[in-house]
Amino acid sequence: MDRDSIFTTLSQLENNVRLHEGIYGIIKFLAVIDRYPNSSMINLSKEAGFPIPICVAIRNELAKIGWCSRESGGTEITELGTEVLSKLGKFNESFSCIDCNGSGLKLSLENYKDSLIQIRKFTDMRGPPNTVIDQSFATTETSLVRVLTMGDNYDLFHGSYALIGDSDLTCIPLALFSNSKSRVVVFDIDTRIRDIIDCANKKLKLNIEFVEHDLRKNIPEEYKNQFGCFVTDPPYTINGLNLFISRGIQLINDTQGGVGYLSFGSKPPQDQLQIQKNLSKMGCLFTHILPRFNEYVGAQKLGGVSTFYRLQILSDAEPLICTDYEGILYTGERNPTIRAYQCKNCKIMIEVGQGNNFVTIEQLKEV
Amino acid sequence: MDRDSIFTTLSQLENNVRLHEGIYGIIKFLAVIDRYPNSSMINLSKEAGFPIPICVAIRNELAKIGWCSRESGGTEITELGTEVLSKLGKFNESFSCIDCNGSGLKLSLENYKDSLIQIRKFTDMRGPPNTVIDQSFATTETSLVRVLTMGDNYDLFHGSYALIGDSDLTCIPLALFSNSKSRVVVFDIDTRIRDIIDCANKKLKLNIEFVEHDLRKNIPEEYKNQFGCFVTDPPYTINGLNLFISRGIQLINDTQGGVGYLSFGSKPPQDQLQIQKNLSKMGCLFTHILPRFNEYVGAQKLGGVSTFYRLQILSDAEPLICTDYEGILYTGERNPTIRAYQCKNCKIMIEVGQGNNFVTIEQLKEV
Repeated sequence: MDRDSIFTTLSQLENNVRLHEGIYGIIKFLAVIDRYPNSSMINLSKEAGFPIPICVAIRNELAKIGWCSRESGGTEITELGTEVLSKLGKFNESFSCIDCNGSGLKLSLENYKDSLIQIRKFTDMRGPPNTVIDQSFATTETSLVRVLTMGDNYDLFHGSYALIGDSDLTCIPLALFSNSKSRVVVFDIDTRIRDIIDCANKKLKLNIEFVEHDLRKNIPEEYKNQFGCFVTDPPYTINGLNLFISRGIQLINDTQGGVGYLSFGSKPPQDQLQIQKNLSKMGCLFTHILPRFNEYVGAQKLGGVSTFYRLQILSDAEPLICTDYEGILYTGERNPTIRAYQCKNCKIMIEVGQGNNFVTIEQLKEV
Repeated sequence: MDRDSIFTTLSQLENNVRLHEGIYGIIKFLAVIDRYPNSSMINLSKEAGFPIPICVAIRNELAKIGWCSRESGGTEITELGTEVLSKLGKFNESFSCIDCNGSGLKLSLENYKDSLIQIRKFTDMRGPPNTVIDQSFATTETSLVRVLTMGDNYDLFHGSYALIGDSDLTCIPLALFSNSKSRVVVFDIDTRIRDIIDCANKKLKLNIEFVEHDLRKNIPEEYKNQFGCFVTDPPYTINGLNLFISRGIQLINDTQGGVGYLSFGSKPPQDQLQIQKNLSKMGCLFTHILPRFNEYVGAQKLGGVSTFYRLQILSDAEPLICTDYEGILYTGERNPTIRAYQCKNCKIMIEVGQGNNFVTIEQLKEV
């Protein structure tokens, strides 16, 4: 195959899968398959940065034209695929550091085994995530390494930390690793979190404050401009991000500025650009982008990972939303999915989704 | 000292040095001194991310109040400084991976010794940098690791690469490590670069094209929309960045999109935010931020380093500047510095700067 016919084929393929990343996205995916032979779809998805269903679609198209094949161990590049790739470039090596898995940070969790056991006692108390409000629990390890990474960035000297929603319970390692005089305040609508925090405060002698707060409502005046740092893992919509970051900016001391830590899964490039625009507009500056940093229990569609961003909040930062918010917020509101489940015993069909008795499959399972 | 008096002191200190990063910037600097005992000012500057003159100013203020001291080996934190820091936080450890120096990439230059020797033959031919047009040569190692990093990111499959200004001669490793059928085109005003490229083409059997072009002028029609990737290290002003990125966008294939690699030193937060806004507006999405990646020969004011950014150029990207550009571009035009030098032999004073016979000290030295 010559270059021109390769590009013609790639164009057709791109038309079939309609990948936002275009032709180069497909070439990248082929190169990922080549670089990591016999990989599972979840690993290919993590490496390429595309959601699993998209990866499956590309893989199927590539298999159809004989550039890769499905083997028992995973996906493999074929001889033809190798030939195509070598026509495009000769260099397909990873320099990702093995020691730190490419993150640049070597967080030996071995050294923090006791802390992990301590924290896990509380994360284990949460029960199932409430997916209606886009809850998806980060692993206990993720909550801990978030805090260690904040320390690496000199961000455990702020003295006051606001957690804008905290079903991940990042507040617990934060209170453990910051100064005992530090103020740690959690704003969340889910009172299960309050109960766990009460318990952690007692058992670990901490002073984490819990404020029961629907983040659609404006931040109470007494908390505005009080914090040096916020941490948030917003609902997975652009509105959710705008709202939670806006709340964060209101909490940050607006003369001194401060920093924000944002966890957010990757979105198609146009959405990512919109997010970058919104953050710039609000006066939040990206200083660190750590892809695949956060791992979640479940959340397989995105390979169970999301990006961890450090934002510098400039002293003249302005929230996009500074009053109560009435709009669409959660994924389920934006793309309502109704699914039918059949009971194994009585064979009755039950509809699950917005507007039904059971909004999530998790709720149905509990009955 | 209690927390309140610490913060009062920090406020005064911040008033004296007028650090853009505010009080937290000063705390960070104290923590850097604490974390890296006996460090030279250049290393403190690299780690903190502030220019050397700013670091010197903060160090002097901190020394005045007895929080740090100047020792023969470098700067050290005092007992009082340690006490202050422990009141603010208890955690000041680095998790930066030793194996890859925190970059996440392990580029063992040992494995590329021959390539380095090969490339250095040509970078050595450049003579002194022309600082009037903000030239500041990246080290030969930097030019090479830029290309290897592009490879790590699956970006050596684009097939066509535009270098928007290339006094760093990144074109040579790029031509060496991409496919021999790849197109590599350098746009530069400096014809010294053409001569070196001619020489490299002959000796290394490469096909790098050189287009003598003042980037203030619009890109010639024949080159627009032809490339999959651009690489640039613009003049160190916001205008310079806007112009060179605009030229890059014009060169990128506007239906397929592509990527851009940008090298740029750190600026005060407000300027960085403006840059982020401009890039978003143009349709360039940050995907990677690698601080301290590029090293330069000289350029000590910024610790001789700059950040390497990967930008995804969206298919509907639009340049901010799409015609000829007449405005201010280079640092010297923005902040003209006139300095007087005295000849060691004849004692005559000679003025150096914009509008004089010798615009730079390098030119004067050559006589």
